Amino acid sequence: MTGTGGASGGALDVLCIGNAIVDVLAHASEADIGRLGLAKGTMTLIDAPTAERLYTAMGPAVEASGGSAGNTAAGLAALGARTAYIGKVRNDDLGRIFTHDIRAIGCAFDSPPATSGAGTARCLIYVTPDAQRTMATYLGACAELGPGDIDAALAARAGITYLEGYLWDRDAAKAAFLKAARSAHAAGRRVALSLSDPFCVDRHRDSFRELVAGHVDILFANESEILSLYQVGSFDDALQHVRKDCQIAALTRSEKGSVAVSGDEVHVIDAERVGKVVDTTGAGDLFASGFLFGLARGAGLAACGRLGSICAAEAISHMGPRPEADLKALARPALAAAGLS
Amino acid sequence: MTGTGGASGGALDVLCIGNAIVDVLAHASEADIGRLGLAKGTMTLIDAPTAERLYTAMGPAVEASGGSAGNTAAGLAALGARTAYIGKVRNDDLGRIFTHDIRAIGCAFDSPPATSGAGTARCLIYVTPDAQRTMATYLGACAELGPGDIDAALAARAGITYLEGYLWDRDAAKAAFLKAARSAHAAGRRVALSLSDPFCVDRHRDSFRELVAGHVDILFANESEILSLYQVGSFDDALQHVRKDCQIAALTRSEKGSVAVSGDEVHVIDAERVGKVVDTTGAGDLFASGFLFGLARGAGLAACGRLGSICAAEAISHMGPRPEADLKALARPALAAAGLS
Repeated sequence: MTGTGGASGGALDVLCIGNAIVDVLAHASEADIGRLGLAKGTMTLIDAPTAERLYTAMGPAVEASGGSAGNTAAGLAALGARTAYIGKVRNDDLGRIFTHDIRAIGCAFDSPPATSGAGTARCLIYVTPDAQRTMATYLGACAELGPGDIDAALAARAGITYLEGYLWDRDAAKAAFLKAARSAHAAGRRVALSLSDPFCVDRHRDSFRELVAGHVDILFANESEILSLYQVGSFDDALQHVRKDCQIAALTRSEKGSVAVSGDEVHVIDAERVGKVVDTTGAGDLFASGFLFGLARGAGLAACGRLGSICAAEAISHMGPRPEADLKALARPALAAAGLS
Repeated sequence: MTGTGGASGGALDVLCIGNAIVDVLAHASEADIGRLGLAKGTMTLIDAPTAERLYTAMGPAVEASGGSAGNTAAGLAALGARTAYIGKVRNDDLGRIFTHDIRAIGCAFDSPPATSGAGTARCLIYVTPDAQRTMATYLGACAELGPGDIDAALAARAGITYLEGYLWDRDAAKAAFLKAARSAHAAGRRVALSLSDPFCVDRHRDSFRELVAGHVDILFANESEILSLYQVGSFDDALQHVRKDCQIAALTRSEKGSVAVSGDEVHVIDAERVGKVVDTTGAGDLFASGFLFGLARGAGLAACGRLGSICAAEAISHMGPRPEADLKALARPALAAAGLS
């Protein structure tokens, strides 16, 4: 049953800002991915006619609220963090679904929906037999997100403001992103960024590097994203770069686990065991939920990484990005081991 | 990826007619079900304000095309049967989702959507920790389904016309139901009915009895529905009644398996083993898919029951009513054992 949004007035643990998207998930073969011209494991931006064409050709699907930062916010709220989300939906069926789901998990979400223009964003997600996901996103109403949607007071109240790299694809969203980051820093808070996707990094490498070095305290990236950001061939080289740029970096490596680094401190964290990997959608987003929850509770980096792995493992054990199991219960042993509760 | 609808021109195995519904599935506790005033394991009809109120109070959800006969049609198409569906959606996001999913699995669906009035029907489904589902349905655009939506030629071309008992709740749908049944019988075809829900049987017991005795060749019911229909206390008594009323009856008993009866012929069929029962939504609907597929392929009753059990087992192994795994592959050994392919 529902929780209640936790952002009215008091302190916030994390403010998440991103593209508000409903996922449309279907099984597909490796051959399908090739035939559609998509790059496996990545996100491609598509326009409305392409979305229509791809959806018509797609197999039977299920729908679930998604969006990278939205998933992270949902995971944080499920863990018990005081969380708020900013993103733009339209006042249509999908927009109502997105709004319901994020509020129902206990995250505050008060961005007014667009009342005209394109419909709520959707992401067509093709899950191949190896459980890998390949995404084609129609941003729709997300195009309306701009600086006017950023409540500077909310960023000032949040211990961490978390931004998804996907926002960097649109100028108005980029301006919103920078406004939020500046508001957070002006209040002495921290700013976190997820690099989101290797192609997204390719599209915006120079400005991402500037952003990471100048505005980001906590960086999330997977291996291909961090290699692309610094244009290096080895994970260790990337690690040497990022430790100079950010206070904390959390780098995920799929089944190889993750590495958390802060200055001279490096922690290698094993991946959590999963019975059967069903769908990797949301793995990185939920890793960020666990990691940020640990930071918000004052845990050390190793415990933050452990919490991230636990949440990511839950996300990949079922179709869809957001938690189905009780994350609080799953996180309890790791919190206790870190001397927290 | 998509199949193509199989109803244009040629022979049809099964025509399914029902309420076209999108399911909204969320986890809930036993206490939640009581607090909401719902009867566990059954379906309650709700109006628009109640749907709004319940949805607001519901936990985070996922959406999946549903509707009892829609699920049966999807299962039939997934098995490879030539299948068509008749039902009424609105031209909104949920209506497009329903239309996409049923066509994408290979079922023909050409009922024109309503262009005004209430939105596409939705069913709020609460899945309790025991995997049982409790449903609250807002029929919305389904209220528009009437005799004018029944293509008599389609019923005449289908070996079996399958109707869900839920249609009996509205006069126009009831008239549509009877028109389809008469068209099927006039062409020498068979009519199948699912009793749908014990409360639905309670609401319409006398007219259901008349219907079953006078118009139904193949009856699907679970134990509580068949006991309610004949107002008897034992399953054996119900069996004696139904064997006189219908050519074939397939009676499901959850983990106790099912019984298929035709005159003096009685087959007791074990339930299929399931690793973990996640959500029973669609179990009866998918049992009907397998059973009807067997009948369409000329299998004996025992093989029909086995196919029903296999499809039901797949449905209860994940959230949502429609097949996620390859039903054709799952059914192959049972078909081969029955000398079919």
